[in-house]
Amino acid sequence: MGLAVSDTGNFEFTERTTMRRQANRAVFDHATAYAILDEGLICHLGFAVDGRPFVVPTMHWRDGDRLYVHGSSASRTLRALEGGSAEACVTVTLLDGLVLARSAYHHSLNFRSVMVFGRAALVEGPEKLHALARLVEHVAPGRWDEVRHPSELELKATSVLALPLDEVSIKVSPGDPVDDEDDYDLPVWAGVVPLALRAGAPDVDPLMRLDIATPSYLEHYTRLPER
Amino acid sequence: MGLAVSDTGNFEFTERTTMRRQANRAVFDHATAYAILDEGLICHLGFAVDGRPFVVPTMHWRDGDRLYVHGSSASRTLRALEGGSAEACVTVTLLDGLVLARSAYHHSLNFRSVMVFGRAALVEGPEKLHALARLVEHVAPGRWDEVRHPSELELKATSVLALPLDEVSIKVSPGDPVDDEDDYDLPVWAGVVPLALRAGAPDVDPLMRLDIATPSYLEHYTRLPER
Repeated sequence: MGLAVSDTGNFEFTERTTMRRQANRAVFDHATAYAILDEGLICHLGFAVDGRPFVVPTMHWRDGDRLYVHGSSASRTLRALEGGSAEACVTVTLLDGLVLARSAYHHSLNFRSVMVFGRAALVEGPEKLHALARLVEHVAPGRWDEVRHPSELELKATSVLALPLDEVSIKVSPGDPVDDEDDYDLPVWAGVVPLALRAGAPDVDPLMRLDIATPSYLEHYTRLPER
Repeated sequence: MGLAVSDTGNFEFTERTTMRRQANRAVFDHATAYAILDEGLICHLGFAVDGRPFVVPTMHWRDGDRLYVHGSSASRTLRALEGGSAEACVTVTLLDGLVLARSAYHHSLNFRSVMVFGRAALVEGPEKLHALARLVEHVAPGRWDEVRHPSELELKATSVLALPLDEVSIKVSPGDPVDDEDDYDLPVWAGVVPLALRAGAPDVDPLMRLDIATPSYLEHYTRLPER
């Protein structure tokens, strides 16, 4: 992949968030990281067991300066992390485009990515239900007030973990292809193919009651902040 | 997330590829895993340094029963792995839809995911150039014959790593919402919002020669195998 701009912005600098190679840097702030986290639907949750890495896709969501993940209370992934003894790395990546250059070497991807490092803490008490409400609202704003809320049993069957958004690294790779000077005259198509996660028309459950209208949040569902 | 069907198919069963919780199982084969890897443009590459996990987004591609990643020879990620002493976990996830149930608890995502475990080996010699050609073809079939190939210097500046596709786990979560019996009569919209990574119209580099036609692989660019 090509140019990657990486910075911790106004997050704390640590050994892990400064593992960047390129000299190209830009100033990012919390708003940039939060926008990437809020647009994304899934993260890749990394942890190590006896030094062996696991990378598990799961949903994430944010509330203020805390990042949440959840799963079955019986999940080995969550049990490996919930004690707070194991380090986690949660990465959220949004793919924005293919960068097609005239030389193979300068091909790259446009993307925005956030890595969050830290120890996950089990969320209990009133924060747990509040966090699950935020998850539903993260996916479909307005839906929490419509759906049946979790029962006591369902809450017990679910684990919610939170990580502080303290140790955060941002990578953003934007822009057009940059080729070597000698290559610009080559007869090769060059440019960017924009990519985005897009929603199709909602597919109604055949078992749904017939008197229910399509909610407004499903009219033109998008992960973009303009929704 | 809801129901996750997980199996190693006809891959080798190991402790890591059998870390599943659900009893729901299905038979998958190599073709299923390969189709997921081939449709995906990015993976999340996990490794541990001193027991601390890192999850880095990067491109991946496949050639036969080998999975490849690449990057700058100076990349700390690749240098941490290239000796073959460190375990890696490479996860590729395709997001297919939001599953909106009548209860918050039964909400989930439809997705397809592959986890590959193993040690990465540095690729050298003729296999290296061949692998890079496969990367370009993975992104845009037919493009390798059009672009300028890597120079000796560019090859030296690039590291290519390969993992055998031996220890592989597949998770596939498809389908409509499944609610508790008592919830079907609730006045809540239920169904699936299909999601897919889609390409927009190619954005030509303003510096491109004017006599170059749009290549056929960009006419209706898609990651779906039908292209």
